[in-house]
Amino acid sequence: MVVSISESPLYPISNPKSIAFFGASNNFSSMGTSIFRSIISNGFTGKLYPIHPQEKTVLNLTAYPQVSDIPEPADMAFIVLPTKIVAQTLAACGEKGIRNAVIVSAGFNEVGGEGVERQAELLEIANRYGIRFTGPNCIGVVNSHARLNATFLPFEGKPGFIGMASQSGSFITQMFSYLNQRFGKSFSTGFSLGNEADIDLVDCIEYLGACPNTKVIALYIESIRRGQKFIETARNVSKHKPIVAFYVGGSETGKRACLSHTGSLAGPDRLYDGVFRQSGIIRAQSIEEMFDFCYALGSSPLPKGNRVIIQTHSGGPGAAAADACGRSGLELPALSPETLEKIAPYVPHTASVNNPVDLTFTKNPLDFFHRIPEILLEEKASDGMLIYFLASERMVRQALTGMGVPEDAVLDQAAQIVGAQCQSVASLMETFKKPILGFSFMTRDNHFVAGLQDRGIPVLPSPERAARAFGAMVRYTKLREKLLQSEKESAGHFSAE
Amino acid sequence: MVVSISESPLYPISNPKSIAFFGASNNFSSMGTSIFRSIISNGFTGKLYPIHPQEKTVLNLTAYPQVSDIPEPADMAFIVLPTKIVAQTLAACGEKGIRNAVIVSAGFNEVGGEGVERQAELLEIANRYGIRFTGPNCIGVVNSHARLNATFLPFEGKPGFIGMASQSGSFITQMFSYLNQRFGKSFSTGFSLGNEADIDLVDCIEYLGACPNTKVIALYIESIRRGQKFIETARNVSKHKPIVAFYVGGSETGKRACLSHTGSLAGPDRLYDGVFRQSGIIRAQSIEEMFDFCYALGSSPLPKGNRVIIQTHSGGPGAAAADACGRSGLELPALSPETLEKIAPYVPHTASVNNPVDLTFTKNPLDFFHRIPEILLEEKASDGMLIYFLASERMVRQALTGMGVPEDAVLDQAAQIVGAQCQSVASLMETFKKPILGFSFMTRDNHFVAGLQDRGIPVLPSPERAARAFGAMVRYTKLREKLLQSEKESAGHFSAE
Repeated sequence: MVVSISESPLYPISNPKSIAFFGASNNFSSMGTSIFRSIISNGFTGKLYPIHPQEKTVLNLTAYPQVSDIPEPADMAFIVLPTKIVAQTLAACGEKGIRNAVIVSAGFNEVGGEGVERQAELLEIANRYGIRFTGPNCIGVVNSHARLNATFLPFEGKPGFIGMASQSGSFITQMFSYLNQRFGKSFSTGFSLGNEADIDLVDCIEYLGACPNTKVIALYIESIRRGQKFIETARNVSKHKPIVAFYVGGSETGKRACLSHTGSLAGPDRLYDGVFRQSGIIRAQSIEEMFDFCYALGSSPLPKGNRVIIQTHSGGPGAAAADACGRSGLELPALSPETLEKIAPYVPHTASVNNPVDLTFTKNPLDFFHRIPEILLEEKASDGMLIYFLASERMVRQALTGMGVPEDAVLDQAAQIVGAQCQSVASLMETFKKPILGFSFMTRDNHFVAGLQDRGIPVLPSPERAARAFGAMVRYTKLREKLLQSEKESAGHFSAE
Repeated sequence: MVVSISESPLYPISNPKSIAFFGASNNFSSMGTSIFRSIISNGFTGKLYPIHPQEKTVLNLTAYPQVSDIPEPADMAFIVLPTKIVAQTLAACGEKGIRNAVIVSAGFNEVGGEGVERQAELLEIANRYGIRFTGPNCIGVVNSHARLNATFLPFEGKPGFIGMASQSGSFITQMFSYLNQRFGKSFSTGFSLGNEADIDLVDCIEYLGACPNTKVIALYIESIRRGQKFIETARNVSKHKPIVAFYVGGSETGKRACLSHTGSLAGPDRLYDGVFRQSGIIRAQSIEEMFDFCYALGSSPLPKGNRVIIQTHSGGPGAAAADACGRSGLELPALSPETLEKIAPYVPHTASVNNPVDLTFTKNPLDFFHRIPEILLEEKASDGMLIYFLASERMVRQALTGMGVPEDAVLDQAAQIVGAQCQSVASLMETFKKPILGFSFMTRDNHFVAGLQDRGIPVLPSPERAARAFGAMVRYTKLREKLLQSEKESAGHFSAE
């Protein structure tokens, strides 16, 4: 594989220079208009050709009565029309020379009966004209690096590194605010697949595998249609880029729900577990966990093994993290005599220098962010760290006030201190090339959480979630090694022939 | 059991009319001062007697050189002093006639060696004077209904109904902002237990079982000291008030962490699972899950069985909820012909009226909050509902603008509409006495989420978490029935003798 990204049919869909848009009007409450507004308000810089039979303008842009009237074959047609006129519209696009489309309209395979015939007709038209398309019954596409948000919800957050392909559009659009509030970053690219009449998961994995803005791939899966091809493609990609999947068809209730959602036939958990293992894919148990894993995998160097040191100043969160580490297949090595000696000057007598290293408090709070984790990263018996962060800027401000810093200088100085502390942790991860996963019950309202995250340290919202994410990184490291090893062996095999 | 609440040693500790406070000074960065400031700034209305050898005032309150100088034996002594002078201070409190204390100071059993002797000495002094105390090595106490926050972090949120006893103080204090951001409500009462030299989990369960502000009890457990008494007490309480426990000593790594945190000896998961089952306690797998369960159990009527209808307008979240229901032991009954007939006029042709009921969109958005869930609650084959909420006030405002409502009236009208919708859902739960659990990836920044929560509808942050919380409610219903049944049988047994 290793397609050139521009050869993929998903390239013009996620990087269009021009869009022919069907279904936008000046009626604010229609789905088509909502999506069209999102495209405009997200600052799309390409050309927009709204097609409307009556209106002269749509949201102040020149409208065209028919697609044949637009000045060029657009890179992509975006179709949000009543079910019955989708097929003829796609044909008209084909006549115009348009070769890529997103079909949002529903009422096809997922409703059964006539819908199945309608979907077959779409595919027949697409084949006739060489059109490649996502949908029908999908929700759109987003490419944050190209300022493209062709979905009905407003994009939030900075461009990120998670590339997602989803058999539910909700898990693209409805995660905009979630990802922004949780991590401050969003998708690199997101594809809603809908019924997968044409473009499917496999195409997305190929595209996202080659996408330079995507460091890790997230998949929401209700059913895999091209099993063998899926495994081959994912296997190739996961050698160099992690893939995390959330699969919901595995339980009896999940299976029935998938059938009515996208008309797909799901298989039992065991089967999918096998597929994922062969493909080098890490399975997540919930949508939150999928994003946790992606966020950690995309932010952090990979651990060389499963040995973790936990640093905390609170016993409970430390114990919870330790327990969760055990349940996630991680080991907590004891500190070596050298480490114990080096760390002694920095810990109070109430501290515990077992692993978890529970400082209870630090003589000098700054040590918590620099010298202590530095010593723990130097420990050879460990492959990475989990650090519990409670610190709040409020406490820094209080300390400054207590030290007699004048009120008008406190805010600035506190912000500088917080920034420097966060930078210190980030530099340690850079220097030691070992993963540091933070955890905190605080959100990004807390300046330390935001400061760490924005400098590349993943901070997850609970000890269990951090431990599970570290476990996922360990699993990926092992799967990847196995894939690379088997590639090497088969290469050796061929050269010996 | 069934103590009168005022007989419990925890009554004066959580409802003191006066506090003798040791360890506060005018040095802002000390732990004692932080706690003392919290008490003042949270609006405590009782008397505060700071004891300080030198200072004339502490934070502008008259200070006393020794406890013997204060004008009355305070309801409670609060001790945040260096380890070595804790024992003599406790004795001085005894001499003064003080009979209840909270000892925050650390350096006792949890550090081993001399610490063990020091803890024995504390207990000996307490016994001599009849003092009952929490700690040492605890973090304080909070009673939101009495405006008492004796911890070093600021209290956040409204008084709530979760009463917590925790072997880690962090899971009291560090959850203030979590609970507020997540649910808008905090603890009713929270006890940090520390080393449990005297007052322990059992005392807390007794107290919280009788506390009128507590609807559900949360326990963070590293180890249970009085096993038989724990089971008896919890069994009695859980007949009328749910208890949820998060236990972390079950894995090898968790066990070691607990040992160094509070010097407690944890047991294997299997053992604790048995204890919890016998006690009628619901076990949670993480701190987040513990609060999810508590929040749902305290907000909602109990389900009569495990049959759930899922209502959604997004297929993915619906399918994820369905899958999670299967994994949480819940059934998704098919809708009866009567229900299908009643609901038909309200659903578009793209909808799926299997269970999940996936509306895709609603002809009239208001139906989603009233007529549709009403019909689904009337369904006899179901014991409750999970509803996915995406709605945003922004969308309501857009719709109003689209309808030509003048800009200056839009905000008010939108707030009214949101409030009415949320009230409608809350009234349905009231009328049908079936649980309605909401789920949404949005937080309380979203007015629908806050509106529903503030009207008593629990809204959890993901489909999996909502399904698991519903599963916990079903488990509690069953455990409770079993306990009540066995009580009846043994009563019958006695009367037959």
